[in-house]
Amino acid sequence: MQLARVIGTVVATVKNESLEGRKFLIVQTLDANLKPKGKPQVALDAVGAGAGELVFWCRGKEASFPFKRDSTPTDCTIVGIVDSDSHVFNNG
Amino acid sequence: MQLARVIGTVVATVKNESLEGRKFLIVQTLDANLKPKGKPQVALDAVGAGAGELVFWCRGKEASFPFKRDSTPTDCTIVGIVDSDSHVFNNG
Amino acid sequence: MQLARVIGTVVATVKNESLEGRKFLIVQTLDANLKPKGKPQVALDAVGAGAGELVFWCRGKEASFPFKRDSTPTDCTIVGIVDSDSHVFNNG
Amino acid sequence: MQLARVIGTVVATVKNESLEGRKFLIVQTLDANLKPKGKPQVALDAVGAGAGELVFWCRGKEASFPFKRDSTPTDCTIVGIVDSDSHVFNNG
Amino acid sequence: MQLARVIGTVVATVKNESLEGRKFLIVQTLDANLKPKGKPQVALDAVGAGAGELVFWCRGKEASFPFKRDSTPTDCTIVGIVDSDSHVFNNG
Repeated sequence: MQLARVIGTVVATVKNESLEGRKFLIVQTLDANLKPKGKPQVALDAVGAGAGELVFWCRGKEASFPFKRDSTPTDCTIVGIVDSDSHVFNNG
Repeated sequence: MQLARVIGTVVATVKNESLEGRKFLIVQTLDANLKPKGKPQVALDAVGAGAGELVFWCRGKEASFPFKRDSTPTDCTIVGIVDSDSHVFNNG
Repeated sequence: MQLARVIGTVVATVKNESLEGRKFLIVQTLDANLKPKGKPQVALDAVGAGAGELVFWCRGKEASFPFKRDSTPTDCTIVGIVDSDSHVFNNG
Repeated sequence: MQLARVIGTVVATVKNESLEGRKFLIVQTLDANLKPKGKPQVALDAVGAGAGELVFWCRGKEASFPFKRDSTPTDCTIVGIVDSDSHVFNNG
Repeated sequence: MQLARVIGTVVATVKNESLEGRKFLIVQTLDANLKPKGKPQVALDAVGAGAGELVFWCRGKEASFPFKRDSTPTDCTIVGIVDSDSHVFNNG
């Protein structure tokens, strides 16, 4: 899964019907220094994440598992919230 | 899902039969400043998107879900249209 | 799907049995100016493409759909031929 | 599968329920000289790996196979530990 | 599928049980000049490839098809050996 920061939301009135009622967030994937790297993604939220939080998201078909509906067309779903930034990269 | 701008269409007389009757659009994925980044993709349209619109598309097997046909060979399908550019990255 | 140019073929006497009798082509993915970008791929051909043609290919599990055989181990299949280069990126 | 070094762990109190009780590790993918390359990933551990070990991880839907639960939303799972660094790239 | 050169092997005593008895090879993906490009991968071998050979490998769920076991957690499997380097990129 990718480490990312939630940086915004998306409002989409027109969308595939199986996405109705879902919350869309913009997530920015991070590098080893927790700095932005790569393109932001539109993610579905499966855990109740909010702006600014450090999360990890899952891609691919597995990204639709949390919705218990095989036909949810998502390839990017937030599946966990990291407790705090300092909990990452504790190499010791 | 990836944020992208619709930048063109594709005419393909010769194609796999399960793609007959589908609309193909060229989408350009965008970075955090909504500037083009990476290669354009040939996308199937599941929501009625048009040239110039800001959309988000889904990759992988999930991209075929909107067509209710398991055998649609697509790995890039537009599943939503963003209401306006200003609705993105509202970090506040 | 990715826009690409067919740039060669591959002869492989030793291959997985479910690939027997398939035509392998080398495709080079293109950027927004139809210039080569990224690594070439070995693709299965599902539409009768030939050297020099502008095509689009599909990746992932969906790439095996045209073969009506779930067990075809391909992640890159040509599913359409673009009618002409000038049909792409008609933004107008 | 990708070669990677385990470089840390993640604590996530809030996560998708099917991830309860799983161990999360941060892995850094490596290049041909076993130097870090690309973004770190949050991985599930299926073999008992620890910090500093050289491992290889699997992505995509296959990443959920070791858990014998189709609904585990993971796209990055550690499936093997390399016996020692010197066992890699023995071209001879 | 990706063109690659076999550049080494991996010894992994500790691994997921469904990988027991499998041969692991390190493959280096190549660019259009058959020069190394990108990160090396740990691949399962489904065709009997050896060090130095030019091969092509398949990623994703399809990579597990040659093993006739859905639960083989691999996302990189060698599915063919190219007869000779000169058989590639014959644009003529």
